[in-house]
Amino acid sequence: MKFSIRRSVFIKELSNVQRAISSKTTIPILTGLKLVATDNGLTLTGSNADISIETTISASDEDNALAIASTGAIVLPARFFSEIIKRLPEETFQLEVTEGFQTEITSGSASFNVNGLDANNYPHLPEIDTTDAIKLDGAVFRELISQTVIAVSNQESRPILTGVHFVLDENQFLAVATDSHRLSQRKVNLQTGSTSKYDVIIPGKSLVELSRMIGDEYDQVEMRLSENQALFILGETSFYTRLLEGTYPDTSRLIPKEAETTLEFEAPALLAAIERASLLSHESRNNVIKLIIKPSEKSVVIYGNSPDVGKVEEALVPNTVEGSEIEISFNPDYMKDALHSFGQSTIKVSFTSALRPFTLVPTEDDENFIQLITPVRTF
Amino acid sequence: MKFSIRRSVFIKELSNVQRAISSKTTIPILTGLKLVATDNGLTLTGSNADISIETTISASDEDNALAIASTGAIVLPARFFSEIIKRLPEETFQLEVTEGFQTEITSGSASFNVNGLDANNYPHLPEIDTTDAIKLDGAVFRELISQTVIAVSNQESRPILTGVHFVLDENQFLAVATDSHRLSQRKVNLQTGSTSKYDVIIPGKSLVELSRMIGDEYDQVEMRLSENQALFILGETSFYTRLLEGTYPDTSRLIPKEAETTLEFEAPALLAAIERASLLSHESRNNVIKLIIKPSEKSVVIYGNSPDVGKVEEALVPNTVEGSEIEISFNPDYMKDALHSFGQSTIKVSFTSALRPFTLVPTEDDENFIQLITPVRTF
Repeated sequence: MKFSIRRSVFIKELSNVQRAISSKTTIPILTGLKLVATDNGLTLTGSNADISIETTISASDEDNALAIASTGAIVLPARFFSEIIKRLPEETFQLEVTEGFQTEITSGSASFNVNGLDANNYPHLPEIDTTDAIKLDGAVFRELISQTVIAVSNQESRPILTGVHFVLDENQFLAVATDSHRLSQRKVNLQTGSTSKYDVIIPGKSLVELSRMIGDEYDQVEMRLSENQALFILGETSFYTRLLEGTYPDTSRLIPKEAETTLEFEAPALLAAIERASLLSHESRNNVIKLIIKPSEKSVVIYGNSPDVGKVEEALVPNTVEGSEIEISFNPDYMKDALHSFGQSTIKVSFTSALRPFTLVPTEDDENFIQLITPVRTF
Repeated sequence: MKFSIRRSVFIKELSNVQRAISSKTTIPILTGLKLVATDNGLTLTGSNADISIETTISASDEDNALAIASTGAIVLPARFFSEIIKRLPEETFQLEVTEGFQTEITSGSASFNVNGLDANNYPHLPEIDTTDAIKLDGAVFRELISQTVIAVSNQESRPILTGVHFVLDENQFLAVATDSHRLSQRKVNLQTGSTSKYDVIIPGKSLVELSRMIGDEYDQVEMRLSENQALFILGETSFYTRLLEGTYPDTSRLIPKEAETTLEFEAPALLAAIERASLLSHESRNNVIKLIIKPSEKSVVIYGNSPDVGKVEEALVPNTVEGSEIEISFNPDYMKDALHSFGQSTIKVSFTSALRPFTLVPTEDDENFIQLITPVRTF
């Protein structure tokens, strides 16, 4: 195996593949980067137990300055190899596997000799045998991930809640996540090009990495689903993630249909007030803030309290306040995550009672996006 | 005590004073910020065992929008108080000490109530009784700190080496630091306006904070020295640091006067090569790289090696190489620190033997700035 390549091209693809490579893995070869040189190009592969990423640099694109002198495969220590490549002196570098798995990397007058591993021992990537390709708009899919993944559970006690539940049915794409304290649900209408129905649970961590990789770079994402794997194709890059097994709880019943008290706010203004109040709740053991709403007086007041440090009180100015009086306590961090997801929108907050979940929706599109938060009992 | 003030002005001064405040202190009141309101203005004080910073916001400068309604003093939890001020909704805020040490902070409709402490229990700042003020150029002093503080020791086993040794004599200002493995020495000619002689050791950590505070903001720094304290005056801000007690070792004898082998390099090119070689030395236990210099062949080769990972070899291209053949090993991290301190300069590296310290000086000013590194015995 021997090739030379433009360093900047290689570094860019390597940084994508490295998203899947962890130095904390129980399978030593997975700390490595797999390189395969064929006559068509150079393939880079990285993987951990959950995610695998594979990308190919084409030999026919002159911008890559990729010249394959001889084909072959090798696994190199990923973190270390990446640091070497980043610090090489010239615009291009040459890599050659010499005796055994010894690999020589040269650029200008610098020459590195690195101990590689046999690529035959590298695990195979999952096989996705479906031809049914679901086409997603990159920006829309990224927004959908960011709006729902906040409600995913970090607790391994109920593994199924560490994923986002996706249901695809007749061009309607529904994503929902809950950690049992809060829930986030988003619906999108898509011309996916697929007529099949799907119901899958994708790990939240995989979605976060996928979303970063989509970035602003990929307008289109192609999704293929098998029984226990999902494959996302972004240009020349394939992103594989395992699916979570099991049945996701029925979340539709959790969303209240009626409201006793409603408020309308600009999301950024409410967020700023919640952040101020949370300064104090964070200093106390139970991290709870309280809202007292008196529609007859057009009054909404937020309270935060820490016995050690002090207390805060702030009169809020909602656009509208309607319905019955209510006093409700909740975790401000859930509220902050939810409010961030609305950006600059105007939102409606709907309460039923002090112990029942309340909801936040954008006033402009109250059907397709909902954040739900369970209050905290303080008496 | 009661005042109102422009929030941005207060935040700026608070962030300076906070440099001296640590949450990890054995004296609880020092986690606090001391505020003193007089008819002239508002004074902010922060301190830890080593550094104290005090700054005054003037009531007569209209830009400060400072209105003192009643004078007094209070100590408030610094980190927490600072977070509150940063998140307040309006351009100004009001602070009032109500009953006991309860302090009310209001801005717009937000009202915080914070538990304060009695300012009478706050330690007094050191007294510097000298009137001899040494004037330093801000940028020159900052450069002098950055070039020498790199060689300060982090080990508390010889406390005196954790400081920079300053000697001021007849307008010549000398700064030197060594951790016994390397040494950095810089001389500056200054019109200080002082005729006294001084010989002090200032803790490296204090200098780092001082240098950050000087930043690009202060063209002039005024230094006053007492027996065990130094005071630096930057505009309205006073920066106090304790001095280290004891006699600094005589470092002048350590600097070799003659050389057997000399090289000339562009500092950035040598730095890049050392960084590449150190990638490998960092993976091995002893973190050493080797230079083999053969002046007769105009050859300088750098070697790095890690039994686990691999090895690196690079032929360097010095501007000149003169003298005897030599093979020398050293810690690349000392070399990197030294090379960084030369910026874009051309430097001369001078060796006497494989076990004697070698030096780096800028070719343009080889009298006033020297970095010295002790090699490592590898046989």
